[in-house]
Amino acid sequence: MDSETVEVRFLPHERTVSVPKGTSLLRAAMEAGVHVNASCGGEGICGKCRVHVEEGEVSAEATSRVDPGDWEKGVRLACRTTVEGPVTVRVPVESTVDASVLNAVATPKHTARIRQTNLDDLKEQGLFIPPVEKKYLEIRPPSTADNVCDMSRLVNHLRQEEGEHRLKADLSVIRKIPDAMRKEDFKVTVTLARPVREDSRNRIINVQPGDTTKSNYALAIDIGTTTIHGQLVDQFTGEVLAQHGEFNGQISYGEDVISRIVYAEKPGGLEKLSQVVVATINTVIRRLVKDSGVDLDDVSTMALAGNTTMTQLLLQINPAPLRRSPFVPAATLFPPFSAAELGIEVAPHVAALVYPCISSYVGGDIVAGVMGSGMYRSEELTLYIDLGTNAEIVIGNKDWMACAACSAGPAFEGGGIEHGMRAAKGAIEDFSLDPVTWEPMVLTIGNVRPKGICGSGLFVIVASLFEYGVVDSQGKFNRNLNTPRIRKSRDVYEYVLAWASETQIGRDIVLTEIDIENLIRAKGAMYAGYTTLLTEVGLTMADLDRVILAGGFGSYVDLASAMAIGLLPEMDAEKVIFVGNGSLMGAKMTVLTNRLRQDVVSVTHKMTNFELSETVSYMDNYVAALFLPHTSQGLFPKLSERMENRRRIMEKMGRPAVP
Amino acid sequence: MDSETVEVRFLPHERTVSVPKGTSLLRAAMEAGVHVNASCGGEGICGKCRVHVEEGEVSAEATSRVDPGDWEKGVRLACRTTVEGPVTVRVPVESTVDASVLNAVATPKHTARIRQTNLDDLKEQGLFIPPVEKKYLEIRPPSTADNVCDMSRLVNHLRQEEGEHRLKADLSVIRKIPDAMRKEDFKVTVTLARPVREDSRNRIINVQPGDTTKSNYALAIDIGTTTIHGQLVDQFTGEVLAQHGEFNGQISYGEDVISRIVYAEKPGGLEKLSQVVVATINTVIRRLVKDSGVDLDDVSTMALAGNTTMTQLLLQINPAPLRRSPFVPAATLFPPFSAAELGIEVAPHVAALVYPCISSYVGGDIVAGVMGSGMYRSEELTLYIDLGTNAEIVIGNKDWMACAACSAGPAFEGGGIEHGMRAAKGAIEDFSLDPVTWEPMVLTIGNVRPKGICGSGLFVIVASLFEYGVVDSQGKFNRNLNTPRIRKSRDVYEYVLAWASETQIGRDIVLTEIDIENLIRAKGAMYAGYTTLLTEVGLTMADLDRVILAGGFGSYVDLASAMAIGLLPEMDAEKVIFVGNGSLMGAKMTVLTNRLRQDVVSVTHKMTNFELSETVSYMDNYVAALFLPHTSQGLFPKLSERMENRRRIMEKMGRPAVP
Repeated sequence: MDSETVEVRFLPHERTVSVPKGTSLLRAAMEAGVHVNASCGGEGICGKCRVHVEEGEVSAEATSRVDPGDWEKGVRLACRTTVEGPVTVRVPVESTVDASVLNAVATPKHTARIRQTNLDDLKEQGLFIPPVEKKYLEIRPPSTADNVCDMSRLVNHLRQEEGEHRLKADLSVIRKIPDAMRKEDFKVTVTLARPVREDSRNRIINVQPGDTTKSNYALAIDIGTTTIHGQLVDQFTGEVLAQHGEFNGQISYGEDVISRIVYAEKPGGLEKLSQVVVATINTVIRRLVKDSGVDLDDVSTMALAGNTTMTQLLLQINPAPLRRSPFVPAATLFPPFSAAELGIEVAPHVAALVYPCISSYVGGDIVAGVMGSGMYRSEELTLYIDLGTNAEIVIGNKDWMACAACSAGPAFEGGGIEHGMRAAKGAIEDFSLDPVTWEPMVLTIGNVRPKGICGSGLFVIVASLFEYGVVDSQGKFNRNLNTPRIRKSRDVYEYVLAWASETQIGRDIVLTEIDIENLIRAKGAMYAGYTTLLTEVGLTMADLDRVILAGGFGSYVDLASAMAIGLLPEMDAEKVIFVGNGSLMGAKMTVLTNRLRQDVVSVTHKMTNFELSETVSYMDNYVAALFLPHTSQGLFPKLSERMENRRRIMEKMGRPAVP
Repeated sequence: MDSETVEVRFLPHERTVSVPKGTSLLRAAMEAGVHVNASCGGEGICGKCRVHVEEGEVSAEATSRVDPGDWEKGVRLACRTTVEGPVTVRVPVESTVDASVLNAVATPKHTARIRQTNLDDLKEQGLFIPPVEKKYLEIRPPSTADNVCDMSRLVNHLRQEEGEHRLKADLSVIRKIPDAMRKEDFKVTVTLARPVREDSRNRIINVQPGDTTKSNYALAIDIGTTTIHGQLVDQFTGEVLAQHGEFNGQISYGEDVISRIVYAEKPGGLEKLSQVVVATINTVIRRLVKDSGVDLDDVSTMALAGNTTMTQLLLQINPAPLRRSPFVPAATLFPPFSAAELGIEVAPHVAALVYPCISSYVGGDIVAGVMGSGMYRSEELTLYIDLGTNAEIVIGNKDWMACAACSAGPAFEGGGIEHGMRAAKGAIEDFSLDPVTWEPMVLTIGNVRPKGICGSGLFVIVASLFEYGVVDSQGKFNRNLNTPRIRKSRDVYEYVLAWASETQIGRDIVLTEIDIENLIRAKGAMYAGYTTLLTEVGLTMADLDRVILAGGFGSYVDLASAMAIGLLPEMDAEKVIFVGNGSLMGAKMTVLTNRLRQDVVSVTHKMTNFELSETVSYMDNYVAALFLPHTSQGLFPKLSERMENRRRIMEKMGRPAVP
């Protein structure tokens, strides 16, 4: 996974960090916990991130922001300079701050990169059961003495030469076979879909002229309420050849699941919402096919995952009962269906699997995460958290599972946050605060000028502001700090992350107290959710072996920040795995191996659904969690120790920590 | 099957016949072999069929054709008078003909009525395995404590209360279940499709509010090259509730299968032909639904049968290889398909079964006849003959079968016959000839003025003309008869069956020598076909236990005529069964019992296809059969004896038989 790494040493902090070759000095500094002022996201516009390369090999873009004399001396913009070998870099700091203090203040990041299983892992673990296989055949042409039909000729060949038995064929194959067989003199590639149940038959789903065995692809689709993500997967190598996301076209008919259900109850509404989501899926597929350059006829299978409402809307199933007590889904298991029949623009032989749901509010996206992460096969007691527009929790292991949905609201995906946005180019995804000047260090996805703040950015910004005392445990700004970055605008206090001139949107990008309040409510709902669930099954946080975090943030989540704001329980960073979009990951794993399809039904039967609104302790737990990090800061001893240390250092520097 | 029958005695012939009450005197006379002049088909227009009712109870329409004085004396029009009790009727004949002679000349008809199996027969024979069943359920509504999804609630109820296991559900059912369950407080009727293979699962295909168990219907469709026939069948009673035929819309794109295949090879041609036949099927279905008054949602299953080309065109499978050596179909077995997906206007849960084919020229219509007639289960050595546009033959029993297609041409369905038409209202279906005056007795389907001649009419007309010496064994008219009915028109000799004023078409309806030639060629191809097939398997006509005759004629086929022209081998009339449209019958049987679906695959494997064009003796057999009845009249001893008798009687009357 990692390419070659090299060491970067930061002075005067005396901090050293290992990063892959090609990493920018600004990212390296962020990872080391070394603050460098930077507010243009890494695009090289603000010119603030000047550093002095004292030693080592770097590759730097020429820039007018550094004058030739300084350039000569080794001054570079950290954001536009990448490391190519071991490097020593000096960061300009105020003379009154000594190196040991800087070292003590810096907190290296424990970013959890997205961890995903690949085909080799599956093979190693004995979990690889290909759902679809291609075989190249050279068949004897017919004659007057041997004029059995094309299908019998094919099936006889497969039986006799390939040992394939219990075969059946789709009508779409019969439609293709006369031409496919005759195009290259009865040399064809046949695609076999393997049965999930052992007592079922092998389906012949495609026949193509010539040898196309190396071209065998699949589609994985996550149907999010806000965004639809897709991957085009090479079933031969397991590689993701293309990935793309689009806003769900249903957004015009309502932002959240409830308003979509309301719309679906209008005459023609259900059909409309289904058509619209299919149209978005088709846009994603067209883009994936274009980006990867594959032939759509070589796409053999497809898996989709979404929450219960998204699933019912896609399949044109009336979702009305989902929003009314006793909250009953129409079905939780769905038969595989012909994707083309639903209007999805793939070949007619593509059967689509939709992930099963658990209840009205714990859907196929969560089941996909549980399956794709392997949680369902593990002995370890795992907490699985999905931070989407609708946030869900699963606790358990291979023997049992409990799940619940939290009404967290859309904050994790940027909803209800003034400058919130999804994890896309220009989203602030990492941040550091100068504890003396309160100046920011801002890194964006794609290293371009900022457009807004994504989920992972939000966590680290709020965590940093809290840890340095800029906001208090109730999420309110310290009104006494002498910095233009903190101001009152339209009666609300806010922190300016980037000035208008440094952004893509021509306005200041800020984080307001209302944003912080929304984040606190969202993370409070989550924390209360898994606290309640653990209590219900007679366990505590200490019993957890690991946490799997899923959600549509950027590629990096700073775990210390997620713990500092009280979103995650405080635990060893090694115990936390970040899987990114869990729903998409589960869909992808399903197109790579039939093992997941075999196991998924029994997993859904194992999962007990809890309705948190019916659980009395939930509201108490929620109210207690409406603080940074929690009303009982004792639950976060490392955070407390870190803040106390920092307070002492700052005092030693003669700059008492606030307040 | 028969209603009350009564005896009708004809004088001076001294012939008595039993007919159902309500039969017209003209039909009764025809059945008794008593000739009564009549050329308006039975509509009461020509006024020729005057008879004297001497005794008994009849019911007669008033008519201006009989004057009040005669009416008083008991004179009636035979065609508009029905028998209501035992009757004695006197037919006016020439005074020189004595009764005994008349009696000797008359040949009572051995008409084979359509014989069809019904649900009770199936039950009696232990063959009744319903393909689809409905069950009415009263399900416990959900509550907060029990909010499993609707499908689980349904499946659990079926398991616990009905002992139904191994269930799976269609997506279309999941779409209907939320509303269906809630409409009548969780009282629903569920439709279960039973698996054909025992190792498969029961499919839940429909869920409806309330109790609809009594409404369970099916569609049977015969896709003929010329005509598409459909039946709407009550699966609860086995009754045919409606029946309808329409010309196949593909006719505009070619009259026969070859020209259809040629059209399908043009760009877009295949899609067009498929759309067009689906449109005709939809017209038939709409009519059936209207006539029967059933709700389309209560139609649960469907079966279709057609020849190989019709089947491939319906399913949009390129038929090009069917018309080129080595004549290879794309497939002979077809998976059940979603009828709605193909554009057939039925509910989405209706799976359609298409009958499997044997070869390019022995199709699903023949397999349907073999299955529906029960031939495949019988010990008896059976000859199955289907006289459609494409004529096919099957010989065999439950252990083995041989089949072949004959290039008989379209004569049996009225094609190539100047006034030929299919068996519909106004078609001349029965006929008798006055051996002295050569005047005709013409009966039409529906007892209306004639429009043309259908297959069964053609057989009896040609047979009568031949038996009375009006045409010779080469099919040529005797040029020396003194009657205006025989004339030369545009260089071709013809017999006038009805004068223009007596017809619906305003022109004389005639039978020409060219018509006879075409019929001889068609019947010659058939006779040569089964002679060749019997020889190939080492058997002779004498080994046959029975003949099953299928085809789109009227409801009655006169077996003596079919034998007299050499279409059928001469044998006991009791050994011949007429099943009408064999393809439609097979389709109907398939929707009534799964037994046929279970058996059909092994039956197709049992059937050996012979290519007659590759069999050397076929052409010799064909040439020998191009006579009435055959070049060796010795093969038809009864006919010879009948003709000899008649010759002697006529001589005795002083009217030497011709020639």
